Amino acid sequence: MTKPPILGARHHPAPPAHRVVIVGSGFGGLFAARALRRSPVAVTMIADTNHHLFQPLLYQVATGILSQGEIAPATRDVLRRYPNIRVVLGEALDVDLEHRTVTATRLGRTFDTPYDSLIVATGVRTSYFGHDGFRHWAPGMKTVDEALELRGRIFGAFETAETEVDPVARAAWLTFAVVGGGPTGVEMAGQIAELSHRALRRDFRVIDPATARVLLFEGASGLLTSFGPRLSKVTERDLRRLGVEVHTGAMVTDMDEHGVEVRMADGTVQRFGARTKMWAAGMEASPLGRLLAEASGAGVDRMGRVEVEPDCSLPGHPEVFVVGDLMALDDLPGVAEVAMQTGRHAARLITARAGGDPGSAPFRYRDLGTLAAISRFRAVARLGRLSVWGFPGWVLWLVVHLAFLTGFKNRFTAVLHWAISFIGRGRSERTITSRQTDRVGPVA
Amino acid sequence: MTKPPILGARHHPAPPAHRVVIVGSGFGGLFAARALRRSPVAVTMIADTNHHLFQPLLYQVATGILSQGEIAPATRDVLRRYPNIRVVLGEALDVDLEHRTVTATRLGRTFDTPYDSLIVATGVRTSYFGHDGFRHWAPGMKTVDEALELRGRIFGAFETAETEVDPVARAAWLTFAVVGGGPTGVEMAGQIAELSHRALRRDFRVIDPATARVLLFEGASGLLTSFGPRLSKVTERDLRRLGVEVHTGAMVTDMDEHGVEVRMADGTVQRFGARTKMWAAGMEASPLGRLLAEASGAGVDRMGRVEVEPDCSLPGHPEVFVVGDLMALDDLPGVAEVAMQTGRHAARLITARAGGDPGSAPFRYRDLGTLAAISRFRAVARLGRLSVWGFPGWVLWLVVHLAFLTGFKNRFTAVLHWAISFIGRGRSERTITSRQTDRVGPVA
Repeated sequence: MTKPPILGARHHPAPPAHRVVIVGSGFGGLFAARALRRSPVAVTMIADTNHHLFQPLLYQVATGILSQGEIAPATRDVLRRYPNIRVVLGEALDVDLEHRTVTATRLGRTFDTPYDSLIVATGVRTSYFGHDGFRHWAPGMKTVDEALELRGRIFGAFETAETEVDPVARAAWLTFAVVGGGPTGVEMAGQIAELSHRALRRDFRVIDPATARVLLFEGASGLLTSFGPRLSKVTERDLRRLGVEVHTGAMVTDMDEHGVEVRMADGTVQRFGARTKMWAAGMEASPLGRLLAEASGAGVDRMGRVEVEPDCSLPGHPEVFVVGDLMALDDLPGVAEVAMQTGRHAARLITARAGGDPGSAPFRYRDLGTLAAISRFRAVARLGRLSVWGFPGWVLWLVVHLAFLTGFKNRFTAVLHWAISFIGRGRSERTITSRQTDRVGPVA
Repeated sequence: MTKPPILGARHHPAPPAHRVVIVGSGFGGLFAARALRRSPVAVTMIADTNHHLFQPLLYQVATGILSQGEIAPATRDVLRRYPNIRVVLGEALDVDLEHRTVTATRLGRTFDTPYDSLIVATGVRTSYFGHDGFRHWAPGMKTVDEALELRGRIFGAFETAETEVDPVARAAWLTFAVVGGGPTGVEMAGQIAELSHRALRRDFRVIDPATARVLLFEGASGLLTSFGPRLSKVTERDLRRLGVEVHTGAMVTDMDEHGVEVRMADGTVQRFGARTKMWAAGMEASPLGRLLAEASGAGVDRMGRVEVEPDCSLPGHPEVFVVGDLMALDDLPGVAEVAMQTGRHAARLITARAGGDPGSAPFRYRDLGTLAAISRFRAVARLGRLSVWGFPGWVLWLVVHLAFLTGFKNRFTAVLHWAISFIGRGRSERTITSRQTDRVGPVA
């Protein structure tokens, strides 16, 4: 343990290699790192979680299908084969654009990491649009912590209903309110419906889980509006067939322990008893975005995302790239594909520079389409101008996700286990921890 | 939802069926319930966790091999096929022996459940022998919560070491102290050694995980003393070969954030720097044991376990059985096999009584032996007077655990996944939640 502490560590190329710091281990950061694995650069990835989260399947952790490890492999495990990449657990607090260092902290100790090129990919987090009190009652769906909290609340609600004598109180425990009709909200609503109507069907003796109500509230006039009007209608129809009560044009105006208050499309205000609530309605940029914008003079959009140059660099700082959800460019959507492609784009420009080519190139998004699962055997997919739904859409969804999971985990048995659990009635990950047993409390 | 609330629920046999209440979902409770599945009785199982914990593999959750769901299936899922068994999530607070009711609570609401026969199987919990402050620094290994807390601390310690500049501080982050040389302590020490020397070998750039120290402290003169002197010696030798520093005759007298203070076998007091500590040194009966003893006049042993009649019943209360770890009878050890057999014994007597036979029969323990894994490919096994160790011991260990897991989960792919992870270098469950990232704090 006599090795030097921060950079120039044992497997790094000998200095003066071009030093790249990547902040964030999501799709943007991970794909940037992988694209640099054979470049003559020394990469340090700083992230505040020890895992890369495959966010598109997070709702399956929240509903008991997958374990955390199955969709959140340790980042250093994913990158262990690349000796020029170092992974550091710490929360990035600030960037000194002048002296080119990133300040990060862990367990109260702060450390600086110098860079020649920087890629910031810290993404977005749940926004409650100023109603910060909602956080207490309705966890978001962006982190493993949030998904585990929701999992405990969902399975705990059925448990409490089983012992609740008062029929009104019991109905509120068996009512689940999902706020937000984008992919995450649609997938959560679909899975809770499947859970209550199919997976848990034979598990209780007093309550009938199939009587559970799943409410889906969306402020816009339709679900999955980014998928186009046809798939939006298909989604609504499929969810209704599953038993989900879909309310579009409906704004959640208040909530408390027992339920939600909603201004409906017709202007009336209604109250729904619902003990379990989840928030998939809004996002805001992570705090590092605003710091970077203030330091560089870059603009931010209404979500707080940083307006970047066409090559994804920070205005006036060609050595700093902002990629993925944290970036505002050409109204690109906050999806995994944009993050992966912008991460790779930044990596390519940095590789060229490390090789002596100071040129730049604008980012061009190649839209490969977008997918959302509604239930077992039904999904919607938009591929350019092509729309696919129903069982063919689901097969497409399954193939894409199997390919992704296999790529990450490279462990056939894990994927097989997943496929069997998902298609079958297996909900093998249902642990409620004792932190959750005794309370319906805030996400820490 | 017009069904009656507590008993007499939809699938229960029509009253007046003999009502059996089982408190606890561990080995004792679960095997009692299963043994009653075809009896003409209405069973209610009350437990304060929603899962049955396969405790012998809990150390594999703490070291990233298994997910919670793989060893802690939902109890109501395990028992769903038996319509005469109802599962209720709640903490049993008290037993009214006179009126024959169990009072339990969940989310601040209490409810009473009447019984004709009662089986109490709430087991034991971690005891710090009066040093309750140790709990903060050294979680036990009895619950899923404790294992997840330890998992976050173990993987988090390597992460912190990777960024720690001071060599003394770094060494303390790379030192793991296991207190207690029974099966759990031996298995934890062995797995942490495997983790640092093998599984994490290529994952870091600054630290070399193979330099991690694993300390095992045992107050008695040998490890695994219940396995007999020969296997005790084999275990010590095998652990030392793995790199574990074994200290027998060593009592931990104090601990804090940075390390432990130990009175060694030679009487000297030594201090070891160790950020990560775990406690596998002692157990005490769950609180319900003392309440039952006080109400019935039964004695308790020094661990607080209830001294029962030869048929496992509470003195003066033939309708109440205390089984498993909570029971003190004939110096039987607190192992899964005793819990399973006493649970089944109580169930058999209750079935006979429900059929009109008021007789009793003393419990006879059939000792099937005991096993402990030391590392990949090495284990020790005592089968009556036969001792097996090394690779043959490990094969035996694997067969027994595969049979158990398959029996519980009945899901071949999950077992396959486990076998491959365990034998390979896979440590796929490493998630540190954000509750854990920023602190080394107490178990909630």
